[in-house]
Parts: sequence; C-alpha cells; structure tokens
Amino acid sequence: MDLQLIAERVYQRTKVETTVRDVEKVMSGLASTSHFWEIVCTSQKPFNVVAEIVEEMRSRGLVDIGENGDITLTPEGKAFLRDHKIFAHKDYTCPACEGRGIWNEDLKKLAQRFDEVTVDRPEAILDYDQGYITTRTVISRIALIAERGDLEGKKLLVLGDDDLLSIAAGLSGLPEEIVVLEIDDRLVEYINRKAKQLGLPVQAEKYDFRDKLPEQYVGRFDTFNTDPPETIEALEVCMTRGLTGLRGEGCAGYFGLTRTESSLKKWNLFQQLLVNKFDVAITDIIHEFNHYVNWDYLLGSIRDDYTFVQVMPRLNWYRSSMYRIELLGGAKKLENKPMPCELYVDEEALIYKPKK
Amino acid sequence: MDLQLIAERVYQRTKVETTVRDVEKVMSGLASTSHFWEIVCTSQKPFNVVAEIVEEMRSRGLVDIGENGDITLTPEGKAFLRDHKIFAHKDYTCPACEGRGIWNEDLKKLAQRFDEVTVDRPEAILDYDQGYITTRTVISRIALIAERGDLEGKKLLVLGDDDLLSIAAGLSGLPEEIVVLEIDDRLVEYINRKAKQLGLPVQAEKYDFRDKLPEQYVGRFDTFNTDPPETIEALEVCMTRGLTGLRGEGCAGYFGLTRTESSLKKWNLFQQLLVNKFDVAITDIIHEFNHYVNWDYLLGSIRDDYTFVQVMPRLNWYRSSMYRIELLGGAKKLENKPMPCELYVDEEALIYKPKK
Repeated sequence: MDLQLIAERVYQRTKVETTVRDVEKVMSGLASTSHFWEIVCTSQKPFNVVAEIVEEMRSRGLVDIGENGDITLTPEGKAFLRDHKIFAHKDYTCPACEGRGIWNEDLKKLAQRFDEVTVDRPEAILDYDQGYITTRTVISRIALIAERGDLEGKKLLVLGDDDLLSIAAGLSGLPEEIVVLEIDDRLVEYINRKAKQLGLPVQAEKYDFRDKLPEQYVGRFDTFNTDPPETIEALEVCMTRGLTGLRGEGCAGYFGLTRTESSLKKWNLFQQLLVNKFDVAITDIIHEFNHYVNWDYLLGSIRDDYTFVQVMPRLNWYRSSMYRIELLGGAKKLENKPMPCELYVDEEALIYKPKK
Repeated sequence: MDLQLIAERVYQRTKVETTVRDVEKVMSGLASTSHFWEIVCTSQKPFNVVAEIVEEMRSRGLVDIGENGDITLTPEGKAFLRDHKIFAHKDYTCPACEGRGIWNEDLKKLAQRFDEVTVDRPEAILDYDQGYITTRTVISRIALIAERGDLEGKKLLVLGDDDLLSIAAGLSGLPEEIVVLEIDDRLVEYINRKAKQLGLPVQAEKYDFRDKLPEQYVGRFDTFNTDPPETIEALEVCMTRGLTGLRGEGCAGYFGLTRTESSLKKWNLFQQLLVNKFDVAITDIIHEFNHYVNWDYLLGSIRDDYTFVQVMPRLNWYRSSMYRIELLGGAKKLENKPMPCELYVDEEALIYKPKK
C-alpha cells in the first residue's frame, strides 16, 4: 500500500495524471484540517483527485468520515504519515493582504463603496458556470492593474463580468473607457443600469466569446480582464479574443486560472500556448489571488457518491492564481473568426462526474 | 518628438527592443520620484533603457538634472506628460509582507537568529557577479518553499549561495539535507564552518555550474534553489543543473529573474525553454519578491557617462521576481555534461556599457 499505488488507482478513476507528490500534498492538507474543502484549497489539486485520494484512504482505514463529513486520521493514518515523512501543511500567507501582495488601507473606501453599489447584484447561476470573487479580491485586482500601469487613462476590455469588475474599475475613477462583453442578459442590463445611475464610463453588451470579436473592438484596448472556463479549448479562444482586442506591444491581459480545475499538465499546455503561439511574456502568477464567494448551486452540481464531499464549505475555498501577460508584438497575426469549443467540461472540471 | 521616436532612439543606443509603453512607464516612474534608482525599480525596465530614456528627456528639456543627480520634470516635461496622459506610478504594495504575499510574525525569530549567525558573512564581490538578498527576503523565501510543501523532510539543493539560504534553511529545522554547490571558496568555507558550529545538516562544496553535476547528486533532491546569471545561455545551463538534481515529477525549483537585466523578450525566450524543453509548469511568478542589499562595487561597475546614474542608491532597488517551477516528468531526458557559456554580459546586463 505505498503512495505510488494510491497515485495509480486515483489516475485510473479520474483519468487525471496523479503523482506521488500529489498524494503527499493531499495527505499533508488532511493532517492540518478535517474539512474537505479546506483540503482541496491547501493541496491545490484537482477536485476529483482530492476526492479519490480521500476515498482511497478511507477504504484502507487511514481516515474516518464523521457524520458531519469531517475527515480525521485514524491511528493507522497517523502512523502512515509519520512513516512516509508527510507533515501537516504550513501556512505563511500574509494576513494583511491575504497573500496577494497588494493592499493598503486607502482601498477600504473603494471596497465599501463597491459593496454599497452592488448590494442588489444578480446571483451566480450554473447556466454560465458563474461564481464571483470577493469584494476584497475585486478591489485588489483593480489595485494590481493600476499598480502595473494598465488602468489609469487606459481603455479596459472586460470579457465576462459576473465579478462586476467593470463597476469597481469605474468607481476607481482611473480608466478612460471600460467595455464589458458578457453572455448573460441579466448582467448586461445590470451593469448598464448601474453605470448610467452612477455616471461611470462603462458600457456592456451581449456577446458569446465563441463569436468573433466585434470589429469596432479589434485593436482598441490597452488592457483586458477575463476569467476563462478552464478547458484548453476555452482558454485558447478566450486569450484570442482578449489579445485581439489589444492595441499592440506593451498592452496587458489579466485572468485567473485554478489548480482545482486544472492540473499542472494543463497549466503547462496552456503556458505553451501563451509563450509560443500568442507571443506574450507571463509577468506574474500570483497564487490564490482570487477568492470566490461560495455559490448556491455547488453541492447540486458535483458528484454525490461520497458523503465527505457533500458538505457545505466553511471557507471561500475556490481560488485561482492571477496571471498577468504582456504582449510583445504579435497580436495582429491572430485571426478574428468564430471558434466553437467545449466550454466547461473536461476530466478536471469540478462538475465532471467520473463513470464507475 | 513623440513617444515612438524616443523609443526608437533608445533602441538604437541600447540594442534592447523598446516600446512606447516602456517609455511611458519610465516617465510614469519619473513623475513619482526624482531618484534614478527608484525609477529603475518602479518602471521595471532594463537599466540601460531607463538611463537612455532619462537622457533623451534631458536633451529635450523635459527634465533637469540637479547637482546631486536628482531628476525633476521641467514645466515642459509636466506638460508633455499631461498631453500624453501619463500619470505618476501608483503603489499598492502590501506594507506587511513587502508585496511577497508571504509573512507572519512567527518568522521574526528565525530572521533574528539568521542575522546573529551570519553577522560575519563574506562581502559580495564583482568576480562572481555577487549580491545578496535582505534577511527579510531570505526568510520569506524559506517560508514560501515550506508553504508549498517543498522543504519539510525534503532534500534541498542550493546552486550558488551568496544569499546563505542554506544557513536559513538549516536554522528552520525543516529540511532533511541541504547541499550547496558554490564557486566561491570563501563561501564554501564559511558555510561549512557555520554548519559545523551550529550542527546544521548543510554541506557545501566547490562547483562551477558550467561543469556537469557531480554524479552523486543526479536525481537526489526534492527541491532546488538558485539565482541564475541572466543571459539566456546561463539560464539554460542553470536550469539544466537544477532539474538534473531533482528526483522526478512533482519536485520543484525556485529562482529569481529580474526585469532590470532581462527584457520581457528575454523572459519570453526563457519561458519557452521552461515549458517546451524542460517539461515543467510555472506555478508562481511573484513580482519583486527578492530585494537585494546594495553592494559596494555598484557605481564602479556601471557606465559613468551620465551623472544621474552615478548616485548612491537610497533604497534596495535591485529586485527580482520569484519563480517556482514544478517538474512534470521529463528531467531524466536531460544530458549531464559540461556546458561552457557566456555568464554575465549581454546588452541588458547592468554592467553592459553601450558603445557610442
């Protein structure tokens, strides 16, 4: 019953490549918390991989599952970890900025104003794989974009905006123009209404990113922001749209990518796309920058075969790394055309349900 | 006299590709400080590019150079920035963690102990392009490596160690074994002596990374740490050595890369190497994580044709982004052989002196 064997079984069940170190990291998370979603959060492994590793440990008597879904190491489990030199996960995240590296007290006012203004925001729905980031995250994101010189006096393209980043950017008073392209009518209407009420330079319109970018937006913007669905196909289409919208070299794109729905194998493929095909440099990858507010439809949309998974998260566990990319000069080569693609579901997706 | 023209002249003089946005960023830095090294720090552009942009502005009456080397915008300069919508650089760096995202108060003790132990450390010398990071940086780096599960109970390879990271790692009590490979006899001797005195599991030996990795270290380690010289050749050799030392998939490497001595063009080429050739994923790029203590030989080693450059830095201006990479499985394919290469000087190097 060694780690390699567990890794192989998990791979067979999930079809997601799983290493001994992946197993170690889940066990290390488990040694520091008994809450499933916290283990997913600290181990930074795809959701289904974490679920199968815990199940594998349960079936071997290394952990017990409590009535409330709590996962606790048995004496055998503790001995196993000791024998394999696996230690409890250590946390050195800066409490002041929640690990983003970006924050100061001046931003509190903007955060408060954003909360007031968006108190009646539309709720996240499953149809479009929605889920929005915390207020602290959205304001930190605005600060990051400003700090890097990509916001003040600039034209900003927001591709998909259930986060209402456009409103936060407008409230900051920094950008010259903000255009939101969004598939959800509720959000388009909401953002336009708020922008008009508040006199913000924000304009939203309906758009499906599988369609080509409207001609008037090609090469118009200094900066784009998006949170792509995490299939490789969707990532490619999303980057194509964002980069097609930029004016040229030195312009920048911001987006999140998770470890929960994307293995490092997928990260590598995606990074190949970025640096080979898209002619950009990756300037920042900020770990767990984006924290998502828990969404109502979570438990109904994921697998229900393991009781320890079907528990309400007690923290904002779904997080993504913040990428910043900067264009070196090649965006004009990208073809602006319709690109149909699988948006949401691959083996690493949260809502993917493994077949038995 | 537009920005494009300035960018082209700077390119002619430096041979470093320079965009309109680069010029903007230097001007944006200049609008927030009059100290040359602070502009280099905030604009994140290669040193010689910054110097030539400032000189171009001086020759056009946009800035005045004070007797102390201070650079101040003239009324014409201020009008120029206004006309081109260039705004003063904004700083939202978290003061608690200095922007690293990693810190907590428990680490202070380790920092203090490190300072006590290394009070007699060897000074940085030009021969090996040395310069060491602040205590706060080295301790944060240890915390980062630990947080990611790459330190406790692990074997750590340190390639080049004027930072004395090995000592800090040893003092943390977390790693099982630490091997330092270092070219400078002074450091090898110093580290071994300290390790012996303090009973740390650290062992240093002399090594030039152009030589192949000693056979006993091939595939031995869980984690490597290095700060490569920043020519593309040296980066490739350094990564080859580090990755050759790792056990296999899931193992990680940590290293710094600057914007001061590497343009984003070089970043892109280097990132291509990482994701195409080396079969790793880049998991983190943390902006300005590493702060270097100013070194004595700086002003004597750089160009002396501009008075505003020949001023003592009043901050720890030399910084690098922290990269973390994780191996996906291909390290065994790397050939372990001698690789001669140009270590220190390309057009983007700090010590490169443009010919007139």
